[in-house]
Amino acid sequence: MTDRLTALRQTMTKQNVDLVALGPGAHLGWLVSVQPHGDERPLLFCVSQTYAGFLMPALEADSARQHTDLPFHCWSDDEGPGRAFDDLLATAGAENARAIVLDETMRADFAALVQDRLMQAKRQFTATTVGALRMRKDDREYRILKRNAQTADQAMQAAWAEMAPGMTETQVADIVRNAFKRQGVKPMFTIIGAGGNGAYPHHQTGETVLKRGDAIVMDIGGGMDGYSSDMTRMAVIGTPPEDYDVVHQVVEGAVQAALAAAKPGVKAHVVDDAARGVITDAGYGEYFVHRTGHGMGVEVHEPPYITATSETVLEEGMVFSIEPGIYLPGRFGIRLEDIVILRDDGPEILSDLPRDLRVLLD
Amino acid sequence: MTDRLTALRQTMTKQNVDLVALGPGAHLGWLVSVQPHGDERPLLFCVSQTYAGFLMPALEADSARQHTDLPFHCWSDDEGPGRAFDDLLATAGAENARAIVLDETMRADFAALVQDRLMQAKRQFTATTVGALRMRKDDREYRILKRNAQTADQAMQAAWAEMAPGMTETQVADIVRNAFKRQGVKPMFTIIGAGGNGAYPHHQTGETVLKRGDAIVMDIGGGMDGYSSDMTRMAVIGTPPEDYDVVHQVVEGAVQAALAAAKPGVKAHVVDDAARGVITDAGYGEYFVHRTGHGMGVEVHEPPYITATSETVLEEGMVFSIEPGIYLPGRFGIRLEDIVILRDDGPEILSDLPRDLRVLLD
Repeated sequence: MTDRLTALRQTMTKQNVDLVALGPGAHLGWLVSVQPHGDERPLLFCVSQTYAGFLMPALEADSARQHTDLPFHCWSDDEGPGRAFDDLLATAGAENARAIVLDETMRADFAALVQDRLMQAKRQFTATTVGALRMRKDDREYRILKRNAQTADQAMQAAWAEMAPGMTETQVADIVRNAFKRQGVKPMFTIIGAGGNGAYPHHQTGETVLKRGDAIVMDIGGGMDGYSSDMTRMAVIGTPPEDYDVVHQVVEGAVQAALAAAKPGVKAHVVDDAARGVITDAGYGEYFVHRTGHGMGVEVHEPPYITATSETVLEEGMVFSIEPGIYLPGRFGIRLEDIVILRDDGPEILSDLPRDLRVLLD
Repeated sequence: MTDRLTALRQTMTKQNVDLVALGPGAHLGWLVSVQPHGDERPLLFCVSQTYAGFLMPALEADSARQHTDLPFHCWSDDEGPGRAFDDLLATAGAENARAIVLDETMRADFAALVQDRLMQAKRQFTATTVGALRMRKDDREYRILKRNAQTADQAMQAAWAEMAPGMTETQVADIVRNAFKRQGVKPMFTIIGAGGNGAYPHHQTGETVLKRGDAIVMDIGGGMDGYSSDMTRMAVIGTPPEDYDVVHQVVEGAVQAALAAAKPGVKAHVVDDAARGVITDAGYGEYFVHRTGHGMGVEVHEPPYITATSETVLEEGMVFSIEPGIYLPGRFGIRLEDIVILRDDGPEILSDLPRDLRVLLD
């Protein structure tokens, strides 16, 4: 905890940032290991070179106090947060801050509270401070992420063992969720997209019934110790639809091209270019409608983003997904996703489960 | 849906607002019955007098299109949202908007996207537009809220039927959650605070074991058809702790005073004053650390807020909680909460369950 605050202050010095203000959420949880209850009441954690403290709704104070010794500036529902925030700024020596970093994920009215008090300050979000620090994972984080990936492998296999024609997507999702729970893991998300539904990358799992020959997209994740897993595999009951094998091979080729391109020192867009190139060359470019990947840590989506335009330079210890897909409207979708940690010689895949189509017997 | 958009445009005209921009969330769901997937990709719904359309991440478009016919201005991960947003503003005739309303709940970087394009515009949040329109509920909303309250009554009674010494708070919460699920209701939150834990209003339900004589705060809610329930009752296994009955009577007196004060035309703070007055007069003022209530609709917390300083005038059809509490650190907490809808002659309580302490036999 203290190490991260120290590292943040070093980046603040380098970048001439006077104040960092974070809302409840992932940045705050990562920085000081506190996850206070977040609602419409302004709750901020503010860091200057000389001070770090919370703007804290009074009714949350006792509960939050069990998780941190950092100072609170409390405000009650009847008086509102203004005076307490002024007090915090004065204590932090930040009443005249000229450059501030705001948590881009926090509510717009929390950000407005800070900006309206510091009208003269130049605003930026956390990309080069907290966000940048979060990208490289340490050994403890790696061990959690690796173990989480293994629990996802188990949950995926549990679903494959039970899936049958006539089951709904929701029922498959329930098998996955229960398999996570049996391992002490909190289910985070479960996209089960059968047949044409798989052509929507963020399909909302529903009451569609699984049929023989449906290509089924299975994108699952579960959380433990503050980190999630995230993997996508493909399954079919019986014989896959026409053209399936060809398209699967293209997506697998895109994954392998991205894996080969990902090295420390390479810009993120080079990895996207590699995956996209394979798919475009095969004639499916217009059906790959999203970026190749996203970072993963205390949030399921976080920097670095692996997009066609990202100039972020990849570094050892960064963790991100490689998940190209081809989505054929009205027919099927194929996405293959693995989480990798970047080592000095390239990516290490966290899952131990092959990306082959899983053909289930009827 | 169309009615709500029309009503919004009427308030915009009255208040000289040129553009309303909402993110994914409750305001948007209420206004146009769409709940698009929200992540870090800017997704906005913008309304001017002549136009209403979405800034839409390309990969969400097909999925969102299943739920709305309103126009999309799509952007892809590689190009970013800038051009599509400019296009939306131009189509809406809002490139020179002078007064804009922003969704206070949306991410700070979504708000910044709008503000950075409309630097000259005066910003306000939704309190007097979308927020104000949402406060008064129609008959359909009442019927959903009433039925939801009844499912919460059932879930509370299911817990009472099974609670026993040696059970953990989490186990009690699981009973409540399962009782909601059996009724087709999605569990939304379950605060179970045994003994000293009850003195934290937002206690995080955990592994504390229920003991004989613990006063147990039970604050539960479950959702169906886009609305939640929210109620708090008190239970004890065996004999309540010393002073319990006296304090319970004070909190019950505060509830009744608030119910008596709540009439159309009265300011919200008058209701808070009534409840707080009873508790203060009994000598427990410093232990009532939060507002008396909050509105409830498509969100569990929404306007009107029943605080000591709120000047909001209560109107027929408004739905809000009355939930005074007394929190004695290290000993116990007592909160009694009912949701009411304001009728012309006063509040109608949605729950049918008495607020008496539920004494469970050992």
